Amino acid sequence: MSGYAAYAPHEDLRPIEFARRDLRPDDVAVRVTHVGVCHSDLHAVEARTVGDPPLVPGHEFTGEVTAVGPEVSRFRVGDAVAVGNIVDSCGECDNCLAHREPYCRQFPALTYGGRDLRDGTPTQGAYSTEYVVRDAFVYALPAGLDPAAVAPLMCAGVTTWSPLTRAGVGPGQQVGVVGLGGLGHLAVRFAVALGARVTVFTTSPAKADDARALGAHDVVVSTDPEAMAAVAGRLDFVLDTASGAHDLDPYLGTLRLDGTLCVLGLPESYTVSPMSLLGRSLAVSGSGGTADAQAMLDFCGEHGLTADVEVLPLEDVNTAFERLGRNDVRYRFVLAVAP
Amino acid sequence: MSGYAAYAPHEDLRPIEFARRDLRPDDVAVRVTHVGVCHSDLHAVEARTVGDPPLVPGHEFTGEVTAVGPEVSRFRVGDAVAVGNIVDSCGECDNCLAHREPYCRQFPALTYGGRDLRDGTPTQGAYSTEYVVRDAFVYALPAGLDPAAVAPLMCAGVTTWSPLTRAGVGPGQQVGVVGLGGLGHLAVRFAVALGARVTVFTTSPAKADDARALGAHDVVVSTDPEAMAAVAGRLDFVLDTASGAHDLDPYLGTLRLDGTLCVLGLPESYTVSPMSLLGRSLAVSGSGGTADAQAMLDFCGEHGLTADVEVLPLEDVNTAFERLGRNDVRYRFVLAVAP
Repeated sequence: MSGYAAYAPHEDLRPIEFARRDLRPDDVAVRVTHVGVCHSDLHAVEARTVGDPPLVPGHEFTGEVTAVGPEVSRFRVGDAVAVGNIVDSCGECDNCLAHREPYCRQFPALTYGGRDLRDGTPTQGAYSTEYVVRDAFVYALPAGLDPAAVAPLMCAGVTTWSPLTRAGVGPGQQVGVVGLGGLGHLAVRFAVALGARVTVFTTSPAKADDARALGAHDVVVSTDPEAMAAVAGRLDFVLDTASGAHDLDPYLGTLRLDGTLCVLGLPESYTVSPMSLLGRSLAVSGSGGTADAQAMLDFCGEHGLTADVEVLPLEDVNTAFERLGRNDVRYRFVLAVAP
Repeated sequence: MSGYAAYAPHEDLRPIEFARRDLRPDDVAVRVTHVGVCHSDLHAVEARTVGDPPLVPGHEFTGEVTAVGPEVSRFRVGDAVAVGNIVDSCGECDNCLAHREPYCRQFPALTYGGRDLRDGTPTQGAYSTEYVVRDAFVYALPAGLDPAAVAPLMCAGVTTWSPLTRAGVGPGQQVGVVGLGGLGHLAVRFAVALGARVTVFTTSPAKADDARALGAHDVVVSTDPEAMAAVAGRLDFVLDTASGAHDLDPYLGTLRLDGTLCVLGLPESYTVSPMSLLGRSLAVSGSGGTADAQAMLDFCGEHGLTADVEVLPLEDVNTAFERLGRNDVRYRFVLAVAP
């Protein structure tokens, strides 16, 4: 089977031929049709955060089942399925038993750049024609949804869905979303669909119309002190999807008593002032587990909710990376993998 | 009436004669019998954080009602009462309506070093023979408890009670308490009485026996990496009562998924690593409001729970300050005010 691999930072990804493992009894073989391009893919390649070269990225994808192991009962050949950013976990620790597998105490197997938990071989991602994955980490594609637009739900989606729903976001609540990229645009859609009143914080006034088109009720340009002061002490929950280091105090200041700022980005450190945090909480969320992913897909199926994507052929992966590097995408690139 | 006032940092407090306001219709006049010496009193004097000299400190006290205004129905002359660190608030904002008055959006009137909300005069504290206070901020002393040992409950107590109970600390939970001073020793007693399993973190191995005497089930010397590693990922809630700037990452590391580190100290800033905070929360708690204070006093009355105090006469306030400055107290000084 074939794919695209990163060989060194700052170099184009190049075609690669490699083999997937033979099917184990609980494995599902998936012909990949669509794979999302996540900021973390770019980061993994540029900063060598995971795995060794040649590294095949790709951890949010959809496709069709082509074969199943003898113990697999949930899927059949021909099923439309989706897979996210982890592909196995110990299954025995408290966090796994709670279906919060990204927090597995033994550390989960990442979809790429990780290690298979049974044979220790490196995992390679879904910028490729096929993936072989344990059935417990495969999800049925909800009927009626575009597979291209579902792919980003499997990482960007569940990563925003999980903290929003765990915080109990719903009617009567005021929710803020910082940043309007791949994660932020889904966070806005989720929070609106969950019934909250949603305020988008953005540094670019030009994004106000986009934010409203996604359903946001209010837009605040975060560099405008008066606009920030007007929202001070008002929000119940703020989800910060902005990547890179940035000052958290202004967003903490928008929270009411007992409010929480939940940050998804992982810079070197967070520094906050005690007075900004007084009576409030700062949380950092990883991705959601299998229960969250399934709940999110069910919700998306009911609400017809997917990501806004720009689809490019897998061969154009380097164009996607280059444009993503300068944030030239609304809101997620998805690579179409030819059969 | 007479008291002790601070005139300048690094100078002894000196006797002062001053007048309290005439009773308003909803005022209670209290003859002060016991007043706790809080770290923040020392800090207020040394760092000039609140008020102008001459400043009379004291914001956790007990005493006897000597007069009431015509609208006061909850108290009568002769009642034993207690007062804490705020004495008024706007009463109209959402936080006041929720009886979380320390978070009053108009800012509450501090017991000393603040401003009376009606006439704007500076408030002077309870290192003095009498205090006049609005009835809504006066509490009945629970029967059977030593007034000297109740005084510290009104600040150190409610400040630890509030975050512990709001976090739902109870049976089946593992709770950590960082520091074993005025606040910490009450946090341990509360958490134990609430039914949690309690681990005390201390830098001094010598305090292990003290911690166990207070009811702690486990003691971890926080400078011992092996002991800290043994408790990694285990606790549901950690209350950090240590004052001064210190590294929070080691305590975040003791939390299980969804656990919270709640900090009471207010250094210049907090800096934490994203990986320490991943799947966890950092909160900062102020003091509790009138509902929390009343619930705490009810609980203390039922459980016979009070602070461990060393009582000195008011005239020895400078000795108390000097010894508190070098942490030479178990666990709280209380000044006895002669009638």
